[in-house]
Amino acid sequence: MKPDPYLRLEEPLLIVISGPSGVGKDTILQHLKKRRVPFHFVVTAASRPARPGEVNGTDYHFVSAAEFTRMIEDDELLEYALVYGEYKGVPIDQVRQAFSSGKDVIMRLDVQGAARIRQLAPEAVLVFIVAGSEEELVQRLRARRTEKPDAINTRVATARQELQRIGEFDYCVVNPQGNVDAAVDGILAIINAEHARVHQRQVRL
Amino acid sequence: MKPDPYLRLEEPLLIVISGPSGVGKDTILQHLKKRRVPFHFVVTAASRPARPGEVNGTDYHFVSAAEFTRMIEDDELLEYALVYGEYKGVPIDQVRQAFSSGKDVIMRLDVQGAARIRQLAPEAVLVFIVAGSEEELVQRLRARRTEKPDAINTRVATARQELQRIGEFDYCVVNPQGNVDAAVDGILAIINAEHARVHQRQVRL
Repeated sequence: MKPDPYLRLEEPLLIVISGPSGVGKDTILQHLKKRRVPFHFVVTAASRPARPGEVNGTDYHFVSAAEFTRMIEDDELLEYALVYGEYKGVPIDQVRQAFSSGKDVIMRLDVQGAARIRQLAPEAVLVFIVAGSEEELVQRLRARRTEKPDAINTRVATARQELQRIGEFDYCVVNPQGNVDAAVDGILAIINAEHARVHQRQVRL
Repeated sequence: MKPDPYLRLEEPLLIVISGPSGVGKDTILQHLKKRRVPFHFVVTAASRPARPGEVNGTDYHFVSAAEFTRMIEDDELLEYALVYGEYKGVPIDQVRQAFSSGKDVIMRLDVQGAARIRQLAPEAVLVFIVAGSEEELVQRLRARRTEKPDAINTRVATARQELQRIGEFDYCVVNPQGNVDAAVDGILAIINAEHARVHQRQVRL
């Protein structure tokens, strides 16, 4: 079937928000939700404890390490990763819900998880978030106060390695200190532009 | 040199606004200019007479057919096309000025001109504008009152053919009747997203 540009089939996108630990992925998602845009947010499962202010079932599904291991064994996860000694993963039932919603689906994943999603869903739109500078990244990790100095150093070293993988992503968005709206606007522009992409429309039609 | 995502080199983009006659390219450009965005607009040369409200040197460089023929002979045009018996073309000095401005460059071109620019500048971002429907296109051509009924039929037939070339473009933006802001917002989102594209950043760095 030939593409009919007068037809606007709004086939949903799968958008993956990724980037090193501490660049502000969670804050960006919280602000995206506040904009009341009609997205479906996939809630990731995590074996780490909730940070102050995080809500179970909204920010993450917080589960015990034992429960996470059971989910792995029962094949309930689309993908999972062991990151800094804690499990994070995407429950398959969450993804099913997401796609049946008919809305654009937004997922937050670590860098290794994003690479895995690329294999599972090549049409996914992968967005790599970076801090405004390495100093800002260190400040942000320190401000969490949940990290020990050793953990911060490990995360900065890992962030440097992960930055080398930027070529596996479609877009890079800077989340500058004190201006998360700039990052959120950048992501919304990407989503609008991706809906207007011609290859996208042709695939749909 | 490896890409450094902390570096924001704002290498300018070349954005081509194209699409069939009557979809509202000129109106979109006028509204883009009103938004006071820091773009450099390439002023196309045209041998057709100015329509009511069009300003010479701003909307087009209106020249005689004889002057246009001289420009062709003296190799002063990056590309030109004979469209509906009138010449339109992009003066090379305009493009030089545009790139020395350091700003994103926006050019309006007919569909055949856009295809030619793709060959000259593969990194150009080609945006295809369509009307909300064929009925809207016909209404808009009629509203111009500068077109005879025969000319309108020819333009609609050509528009149908040109729509088949949408696959040569990167993006398709709908310009719905009475809501040119929707089209302008779409184009601005595309420009923002293209600045965030990873391949783009890697080419730059």
